[in-house]
Amino acid sequence: MADFGKNLHRDMVSQLHNFAAVGDAAKLKELLSHSPSLINAAGDNGWTALMCDRSIVNKSWQTALDIAKFWGYKHIANLLANVKGGQTPNFLSNKVKEYENYFGLTLLDRRTDKRTDSKWLSKKQSHPTTVYILFSNLSPLVTLSGGTESSQQSEVKLCRLYHKDVEQCMNQTEESTLIFLGVELQFHMNLLAACNGRVLQEDEEDGLVAWFALSVDSASAEKFKQKHEDCYFLQPPMPALLQLPEKEAGIVAQARSVLAWHSRYRFCPTCGSATKIEEGGYKKTCLKEECPSLQGVHNTSYPRVDPVVIMQVIHPDGNHCLLGRQKRFPPGMFTCLAGFVEPGETIEDAVRREVEEEVGVKVGHVQYVSCQPWPMPSSLMFGCLAVAVSTEIKVDKNEIEDARWFSREQVVEVLIKGNQRSFFVPPSRAIAHQLIKHWIGMNANL
Amino acid sequence: MADFGKNLHRDMVSQLHNFAAVGDAAKLKELLSHSPSLINAAGDNGWTALMCDRSIVNKSWQTALDIAKFWGYKHIANLLANVKGGQTPNFLSNKVKEYENYFGLTLLDRRTDKRTDSKWLSKKQSHPTTVYILFSNLSPLVTLSGGTESSQQSEVKLCRLYHKDVEQCMNQTEESTLIFLGVELQFHMNLLAACNGRVLQEDEEDGLVAWFALSVDSASAEKFKQKHEDCYFLQPPMPALLQLPEKEAGIVAQARSVLAWHSRYRFCPTCGSATKIEEGGYKKTCLKEECPSLQGVHNTSYPRVDPVVIMQVIHPDGNHCLLGRQKRFPPGMFTCLAGFVEPGETIEDAVRREVEEEVGVKVGHVQYVSCQPWPMPSSLMFGCLAVAVSTEIKVDKNEIEDARWFSREQVVEVLIKGNQRSFFVPPSRAIAHQLIKHWIGMNANL
Repeated sequence: MADFGKNLHRDMVSQLHNFAAVGDAAKLKELLSHSPSLINAAGDNGWTALMCDRSIVNKSWQTALDIAKFWGYKHIANLLANVKGGQTPNFLSNKVKEYENYFGLTLLDRRTDKRTDSKWLSKKQSHPTTVYILFSNLSPLVTLSGGTESSQQSEVKLCRLYHKDVEQCMNQTEESTLIFLGVELQFHMNLLAACNGRVLQEDEEDGLVAWFALSVDSASAEKFKQKHEDCYFLQPPMPALLQLPEKEAGIVAQARSVLAWHSRYRFCPTCGSATKIEEGGYKKTCLKEECPSLQGVHNTSYPRVDPVVIMQVIHPDGNHCLLGRQKRFPPGMFTCLAGFVEPGETIEDAVRREVEEEVGVKVGHVQYVSCQPWPMPSSLMFGCLAVAVSTEIKVDKNEIEDARWFSREQVVEVLIKGNQRSFFVPPSRAIAHQLIKHWIGMNANL
Repeated sequence: MADFGKNLHRDMVSQLHNFAAVGDAAKLKELLSHSPSLINAAGDNGWTALMCDRSIVNKSWQTALDIAKFWGYKHIANLLANVKGGQTPNFLSNKVKEYENYFGLTLLDRRTDKRTDSKWLSKKQSHPTTVYILFSNLSPLVTLSGGTESSQQSEVKLCRLYHKDVEQCMNQTEESTLIFLGVELQFHMNLLAACNGRVLQEDEEDGLVAWFALSVDSASAEKFKQKHEDCYFLQPPMPALLQLPEKEAGIVAQARSVLAWHSRYRFCPTCGSATKIEEGGYKKTCLKEECPSLQGVHNTSYPRVDPVVIMQVIHPDGNHCLLGRQKRFPPGMFTCLAGFVEPGETIEDAVRREVEEEVGVKVGHVQYVSCQPWPMPSSLMFGCLAVAVSTEIKVDKNEIEDARWFSREQVVEVLIKGNQRSFFVPPSRAIAHQLIKHWIGMNANL
């Protein structure tokens, strides 16, 4: 019975896939109205059923996604469109895999177009489905879920609040900051409505579930904790923020970076005057009429993102890597070197400069691997492989405490076998861990 | 005779290379003291003679560069170390080429360690070899060189001024800002001194040629132009800044970004108070004693770099690319789409979001190619390939005026054959041009 069900399911997914690829909208619609669950099933399947033909075009030069969008199959369109970079198309000669790191995944579509739609924003603020996440002193309010049965581990999750929960607090205090985060990606929207394909009327409910971040002062935060006994603020942010579910981490990365900008950039840096917040929290405008920042577009009005390079330095022999540690690290922890990118500098040159400054080692070839938003307060970490062309280590004691070459065997021992007697590396949710792992994996393929 | 000279030269380069690789310092030294010019010759040669063995290690686990450094061969060390990412070592399975874009090349080593050495900085400020470049309203002072003979094209170059030229102006005005840019890379330092290998005494002249950027007010700028009739300020910055020699462009990118930061961030954004400039121009400290920005490290004290994504969007068929134009562009110009990276966002997701926002096209796989500092005022452009999974274009008229799919043939016609009747793309010094070219070249390899 289980096998029969599995086979039927597989056949139906396959049919769905074929109809989409050849653009047979009628059959696609029929199949989906009978078995709407197929879409989620395909999703559980790693999207493979719908993914593999993404780049096939029909006689009218349309992809499966074009067809799905045209016929109003928002679900399929989203499935097809949200596969991200999982597969590299054949026509790219250099097949570089796209990696996803913690803080880089999210549940939300930012919908930046809605930031200037004050009517829509204000309607959503009081809408009963709208989700609020609360911050105090840049820490999110969380709760523990699960863990009631002894076998299950409890999980830290964001407290999802609603308008009724935050209404009072939003009106009472002037200290609160509200940021529009986006709307939920529509995987779970009602299928038939999506198949309907008709255009919404002006004032009609769009069904979008909006998310806001609300930052409150300490007094309001205290009241909240008293009211919601199962909730607490995640502190200190590091490493506490690494406990969130992956797709909530990206939301926190976005919210915390923008809130940190508001807390540190209260005044206009061009003239020192007070500012007002606009565009759903993504713009700050100087309140002084003749301020030069009001003429033209200036970065003073927009949130700041600081590019940082973090690099796995590989020995010229290919079989050792350079890891270092700062004094403030837990004893025994070694990790990749890192540093801020300077004005007028490429990431490749920033890698070479930082490695030479910190450990006196010269780097030749640099290769980008993946990036990770790091909301402490608002960095974007560019993870790179860096091939050393010299090997003598001369540690700059102002920057780091120790740096050494570790052999592939030593790293495998720690990373794969979990033997952390001699040293250990950051947890898997830090990009440093992923870079080190990438190097180990890359070499294993030879 | 020419052939004999060429062969002799080739043999000597080859010998130099062998001595370096096997670590025979005595012979290396002897050869170089007889023919110091060999080093530059190797340089003209694309570094090939010294480059190819960069990753060979001797029995003591040292590379050629280690040996050169150990024996005090600074020239060789610099040659070996400054080859950047020209060659990918064999142990990297994914061979991704490193590209260098305009504004990403420089003559200088930033020597960030000297920024906190106020004694050294002040000594260098008045040193006769120190080079000053002048800015007014964020535009550099330049001059035309060459061009006296009719056949020769004149070239725009930075005006290199000395302490005697700027002394008066630095003392007279309070409006001037001074930035330490770095020291000249030591390709042309006296060879024998370098071979000497001895450590410099405390107060001894280090021979480093320092560079500073000096920003002056309009009145001083006017005086300068009157005194130096052959000089002028490059304005408007775009496209004028694209005329500089490549290695001066990187210096201007660095200087202009930092100066723009000073001009737009005069006040402490955390409390609105006045600030003072420190660390050679790379730090700003709030003058109000109890300001929170004085506790801990905050990005408010450091120059800002804004990450931007710019992407060559490829059609699912691999044979078309999407280019768009803004209203403010010259008629007929089309280029890659671009946009700022948001807080808490990866560059790959920023690419997907921007493309969907601007033209309604969904993007799947994203692949980083190269980056370009863009000092208007302080961006870092991340150039990517982006593979579309839908094809229908729906232009957001607020952002752009037009966007179209162009066939490979159309692009080749414009880019390679120079036929710009139907449309044209930005000049070769813009990363957009390089991305488009990269796509054309990539596909030609299949």
